[in-house]
Amino acid sequence: MSVELVEPEPKAISWTHRHLLGLEDLSKSELLTVLDRAEDFVEISERPRKKLGNLKGKVVVNLFFEPSTRTRTSFGLAAKRLSADTIDFTTGGSSLSKGESFIDTAKNIEAMGIDAMVVRHSVPGAPHLLSQHVNVGVINAGDGAHEHPTQGLLDIFTIRRIKGRLEGLTVGLVGDIAHSRVARSNIHGLLKLGAKVIVCGPPTLVPQSIARLGVEVSFRLDDILPRCDVINMLRIQFERQRNGLFPSVREYAHLFGMDSDRLKLAKPDILLLAPGPINRGVEITPEVADGPHSAILQQVTNGLAVRMAVLDLLCGQSAET
Amino acid sequence: MSVELVEPEPKAISWTHRHLLGLEDLSKSELLTVLDRAEDFVEISERPRKKLGNLKGKVVVNLFFEPSTRTRTSFGLAAKRLSADTIDFTTGGSSLSKGESFIDTAKNIEAMGIDAMVVRHSVPGAPHLLSQHVNVGVINAGDGAHEHPTQGLLDIFTIRRIKGRLEGLTVGLVGDIAHSRVARSNIHGLLKLGAKVIVCGPPTLVPQSIARLGVEVSFRLDDILPRCDVINMLRIQFERQRNGLFPSVREYAHLFGMDSDRLKLAKPDILLLAPGPINRGVEITPEVADGPHSAILQQVTNGLAVRMAVLDLLCGQSAET
Amino acid sequence: MSVELVEPEPKAISWTHRHLLGLEDLSKSELLTVLDRAEDFVEISERPRKKLGNLKGKVVVNLFFEPSTRTRTSFGLAAKRLSADTIDFTTGGSSLSKGESFIDTAKNIEAMGIDAMVVRHSVPGAPHLLSQHVNVGVINAGDGAHEHPTQGLLDIFTIRRIKGRLEGLTVGLVGDIAHSRVARSNIHGLLKLGAKVIVCGPPTLVPQSIARLGVEVSFRLDDILPRCDVINMLRIQFERQRNGLFPSVREYAHLFGMDSDRLKLAKPDILLLAPGPINRGVEITPEVADGPHSAILQQVTNGLAVRMAVLDLLCGQSAET
Repeated sequence: MSVELVEPEPKAISWTHRHLLGLEDLSKSELLTVLDRAEDFVEISERPRKKLGNLKGKVVVNLFFEPSTRTRTSFGLAAKRLSADTIDFTTGGSSLSKGESFIDTAKNIEAMGIDAMVVRHSVPGAPHLLSQHVNVGVINAGDGAHEHPTQGLLDIFTIRRIKGRLEGLTVGLVGDIAHSRVARSNIHGLLKLGAKVIVCGPPTLVPQSIARLGVEVSFRLDDILPRCDVINMLRIQFERQRNGLFPSVREYAHLFGMDSDRLKLAKPDILLLAPGPINRGVEITPEVADGPHSAILQQVTNGLAVRMAVLDLLCGQSAET
Repeated sequence: MSVELVEPEPKAISWTHRHLLGLEDLSKSELLTVLDRAEDFVEISERPRKKLGNLKGKVVVNLFFEPSTRTRTSFGLAAKRLSADTIDFTTGGSSLSKGESFIDTAKNIEAMGIDAMVVRHSVPGAPHLLSQHVNVGVINAGDGAHEHPTQGLLDIFTIRRIKGRLEGLTVGLVGDIAHSRVARSNIHGLLKLGAKVIVCGPPTLVPQSIARLGVEVSFRLDDILPRCDVINMLRIQFERQRNGLFPSVREYAHLFGMDSDRLKLAKPDILLLAPGPINRGVEITPEVADGPHSAILQQVTNGLAVRMAVLDLLCGQSAET
Repeated sequence: MSVELVEPEPKAISWTHRHLLGLEDLSKSELLTVLDRAEDFVEISERPRKKLGNLKGKVVVNLFFEPSTRTRTSFGLAAKRLSADTIDFTTGGSSLSKGESFIDTAKNIEAMGIDAMVVRHSVPGAPHLLSQHVNVGVINAGDGAHEHPTQGLLDIFTIRRIKGRLEGLTVGLVGDIAHSRVARSNIHGLLKLGAKVIVCGPPTLVPQSIARLGVEVSFRLDDILPRCDVINMLRIQFERQRNGLFPSVREYAHLFGMDSDRLKLAKPDILLLAPGPINRGVEITPEVADGPHSAILQQVTNGLAVRMAVLDLLCGQSAET
């Protein structure tokens, strides 16, 4: 699948937020502002010297209360590419049950003169709570099963780059919808930008109530696949299996995994996304993951551009003025 | 409490040390040199772009043989703000009992062409020993119960910024004096700069012998509180309790914790410091910690300026000439 | 022992590799290219401001599947000294048994837009496998008992700097030859550059088959010591002892350790190397390690220059053109 370049829309500089807590909070024009800004930064990543001065003299802190390597590294690189200094502040032991200590930790870091906090926390709403106590930009890097806005943005950005548009597309989100912050951020963003969203997975992992967000609900991938322009395959977290939420990995792969046979049911230009890290042979077989429909590695590349855009909007030069 | 700006004293550039091992080693004019230099750097921290070129091309190593996040982060950020490169070299398993390996480790790091070592070690005197074996500046970031000179400096700096002077002030250090390197550094610095120091805590945690340093000793906070201009509340380390050094956290809080009631005994412009991280409800209640007398977060901010000053004095441009 | 400066040979810019996987793969002129380039960078390390712009805007990743502090720090500092950004990606739990996940991890990091990967892995050939799957330069920082090319290069570079030449020298490698990637890299490099190599250790740790590489094999250090210009004492890994590969640390030190008495058998200008960290009193006694024949700390310093040279050759400006 070749990458069609998007004709740049006239860039509405629409951004009024001090924080990025979730895509639910953003308007359509704000979403487009991030996507357009990210477009500028994609080009940078293709240069031999990938460095801009936008955040020179700024400090971006990764404040992770859950382990993460990919998202943390991606934010760290995005900040460095904009010439910010970065700090990693990872604490395994903390929890919102000792609420004051969570806020105290953050306020202490803030007092060191930093400019933005990238926060991951297992408790939904933790970044929101934090944003009420600090005077620097807070970026939600995943809060429980609530939202993971930059992952949603990079998925949407990748779709727009490859499909040339979002309006009118049908996007299937497949897998553990109930526990997925990635699903929730995708849903909020895609609907506002005019795409149709179908969520699909085993009944135990797809709550009927999610239909209220404006999505179609399906329990059979083969039924919806022919109608989809994009399929986003969420990562299966095997620890859920212990709780009996799905019968076996083998059965999951059989019903919801993407392989060459199932791909024949799809449109010829189907686009396949996966937030990663993928379980090869479960959500997706190796030949499909590495095949022409997959944009899995482009998502990683685009993730950097999207995070640069968010950091620049929250604490770059334009944010100062 | 508003921050009164100090009229800059004529700056005596008085600094002859290659290392910063303790405030006991510094003269009054050397202490003032650090404080005045830190004053310059405070202003930097208020700019949108917080970066100076003083240590460009220099490498500062955090060599921590005890875990630490705040002090290590503060030194790291101070170094980066001066454009130094930084390395973290944290080894939990080392100890001075394998003395050669401690020195060998440091000499190996030195051989990589670094310019300053920030050292924390559980054994008193370890940074001093190290300074005799390496040719780069050694900064003590806490050695056992001996000294923590930059913490002492930032406490003193915060007092001077807010009170406008040090001479003639009465400063109470409250808590576990016996095991506190912070207390020791504060005592040496404050006495040289003309303040009166009262140490106060349970008899098991306040050795009578400390009076020899020139401080007043008290076992009742309520007795000394009315005379104090500043109270510095040391952190209680709960592991001491197991050794029976104080009866209960509840009783400690009752006798030595700062709350709204006890605050009524104090001067109306009393300044409250705490090295942090604070145990809310033990050394200090939340409403007092977040109230107008508390300078806890300003201490964190000032810590960066003080550490920038120390790094600049030890390996900045002026140190080269 | 004073450092004789080497008369610069006319610099053949001979370098065609995208990766540095082992010294076995390099020609004599390529080896000389690295050594000559490193010579340029040694001078930098003696300046007060140790920073060059060669890799500005580049990103160097340390991808370590085995723990390491020294090599990782050395590569990190070398990259920073050339103005690259650096990331540490250390994963204890990965292994080549889950081969795809190893490659997937690396391809994901590559997709973040990085320029070189420094890889350490317990499985021989892992960096080679990786180099077939990514489009960025791969530097082997040690793969099992196979090769550790930058350690070999820094040993060789140190010999050339101090002895003024390599051609015609006799170099003894002493210790656990069978399990040593350092030995293997030294052998390949030294032989190509015209030195004679003798490997020496207990029969259980020196496979006879190694003679096929073109080295002399000895089991008695005292026999070969008088003929050697250089002795490189490999680190003994005590965990081997459990497997009965040598009788006791005491006996090893007695037969193969370097002490003042044994040194009397050597040439008066014998040069002693050790890759470190050394076990004082085992491979080498403290007075010899710190004595005039030892270049142990110079090796560390030279390691930085060699790694700067390798990074510059693989992804610096000249690599772009």
